[in-house]
Amino acid sequence: MNSLDELIESMISGNRRSLGKIITLMENDSSSCSYIIPKIHSKTGKAHIIGITGPPGSGKSSVVDKLISYYRNEGLKVGVVAIDPTSPFTGGAILGDRIRMKKHYTDKEVFIRSMATRGSLGGLSEATGNAVKALDAFGKDIIIIETVGAGQIEVDIVKVADTVIVISVPSMGDSVQTIKAGIMEIGDIFAVNKADIEGAEKCIMEIKMMLDLSEKKEDWVPPIVKTYGNLEDGAIELYESIKEHHNYLIKSGHHEKKRVIREKTELLNILQNMFFKNLYSVISEIEIEELARIIAKREKDPYMVIQELMPKLKNLM
Amino acid sequence: MNSLDELIESMISGNRRSLGKIITLMENDSSSCSYIIPKIHSKTGKAHIIGITGPPGSGKSSVVDKLISYYRNEGLKVGVVAIDPTSPFTGGAILGDRIRMKKHYTDKEVFIRSMATRGSLGGLSEATGNAVKALDAFGKDIIIIETVGAGQIEVDIVKVADTVIVISVPSMGDSVQTIKAGIMEIGDIFAVNKADIEGAEKCIMEIKMMLDLSEKKEDWVPPIVKTYGNLEDGAIELYESIKEHHNYLIKSGHHEKKRVIREKTELLNILQNMFFKNLYSVISEIEIEELARIIAKREKDPYMVIQELMPKLKNLM
Repeated sequence: MNSLDELIESMISGNRRSLGKIITLMENDSSSCSYIIPKIHSKTGKAHIIGITGPPGSGKSSVVDKLISYYRNEGLKVGVVAIDPTSPFTGGAILGDRIRMKKHYTDKEVFIRSMATRGSLGGLSEATGNAVKALDAFGKDIIIIETVGAGQIEVDIVKVADTVIVISVPSMGDSVQTIKAGIMEIGDIFAVNKADIEGAEKCIMEIKMMLDLSEKKEDWVPPIVKTYGNLEDGAIELYESIKEHHNYLIKSGHHEKKRVIREKTELLNILQNMFFKNLYSVISEIEIEELARIIAKREKDPYMVIQELMPKLKNLM
Repeated sequence: MNSLDELIESMISGNRRSLGKIITLMENDSSSCSYIIPKIHSKTGKAHIIGITGPPGSGKSSVVDKLISYYRNEGLKVGVVAIDPTSPFTGGAILGDRIRMKKHYTDKEVFIRSMATRGSLGGLSEATGNAVKALDAFGKDIIIIETVGAGQIEVDIVKVADTVIVISVPSMGDSVQTIKAGIMEIGDIFAVNKADIEGAEKCIMEIKMMLDLSEKKEDWVPPIVKTYGNLEDGAIELYESIKEHHNYLIKSGHHEKKRVIREKTELLNILQNMFFKNLYSVISEIEIEELARIIAKREKDPYMVIQELMPKLKNLM
């Protein structure tokens, strides 16, 4: 038994430090995944994975904080993967937020992991997916992915989730734009945070209109709930909606469908990574750069270059 | 000579409608690129490609509007690729903006193309790159890519540009966050728009501090310029900075270096697309879904599945 086996076993038996090490290992060395994932795969698939996305300043973290408390009251174990650079989880927020979060940091049944937003896109959503797997194998009942914004990267990241929550805030001006950017389609629940501020009803109306206009794919009608990140019980309605959505997923069969799609995406990602690894074993980085130089000089076009490369690319896999 | 050849020839000879058709063709049918790009590649590489990114509401479009006017006064031909859902170019803005832009719409030497923000990530940056190529082959001297936000997708898209401008606005609260998210590294020029608003100096100071902290890779020190999207000559300083940056790129040799990197990325993208096309010729979508189902049921892990697939994957390219 090598030391990586020991680390995996230690993680599965509940060692938090080993869990952290495994996540870091998979984040920094993607080749380690081909060893780790087969060892933990059978232990995964039990957690309810919740994705929360919304613009900076929408108070996602306060809402996440409330949700963690509800789950802990139920005795459920919670994991958080935070990819929001403005989140107190990742260290981007003001002191007040940090202090507020402190209670969860000292709770042994809450594991919070922040992911670096730098690096390649593929890298980030892959690392998030692997961190979720590790938390799942570790035995977390609830795994929350917190991510900022409304770009394609967030869409890719929250695809890992069973239930996706899109948070808006009144009068931020860009609630409608957030929805336009492709988030509408992936939201299972819409939360209007800071719902005590003026403009909350208008915000709800806008989301409602958008939902009415969009094509319904399933028989689930995304609820629009109000949250009050600043109040003690300010996310209770959201918490109930998440439960309802989970029940719906299981009963309707969409839970399994979503997970099959997710595994398909991962299978294709692994194949793609293998392809590039093999590619670089037959053509060096320097050779590729030299070919790029020839294309940049307009001596050849990229398709001509690939045609000439073909003999080398045979037997690539 | 087939009709696609005629379309390409018509585009190269200056037909705007053919240009539009070629861009649409490459956007909707990526396999057409392998026919079109070899035919236009030798005609590309002459335009100065400018990327402009910034948060929604930062007034990018007003700045772009001003820049177009300056270039037109010089007699230069301008192409715009707008990927900003809030831009008047893509139809997301209020009536006032549309009217303001109208002068450029009727100018025959300005070609404006909006790209859909939906669809896959790879698709969007690929389509943007192809649209830029078509505009370049068409004979545009200046090509401006306008994109919203600060996510990885924007970083990928503006990588096509020779000169990248990052727009901030005072008191939007997230200027610093914008920079944190990885935009800092790609900005060649920083513009603080609406610089007549309170807080402009603070915004400039913040960007300056960030620039001082970040590692210098080249001998170009990104200038921080003020712009006034609402004023007649409100982007003159930016316009001059873009020229300076272009001169710097040529003199330092970075212009060629950047273009070689771009061609390398494209070469790898084409190879990747070929890989998936070939993959689907030996394994059907249905077979892949069945394998994903087995993985989702935890009967096998993804690496085991790939191991079993290997015989089929031989001779894939």
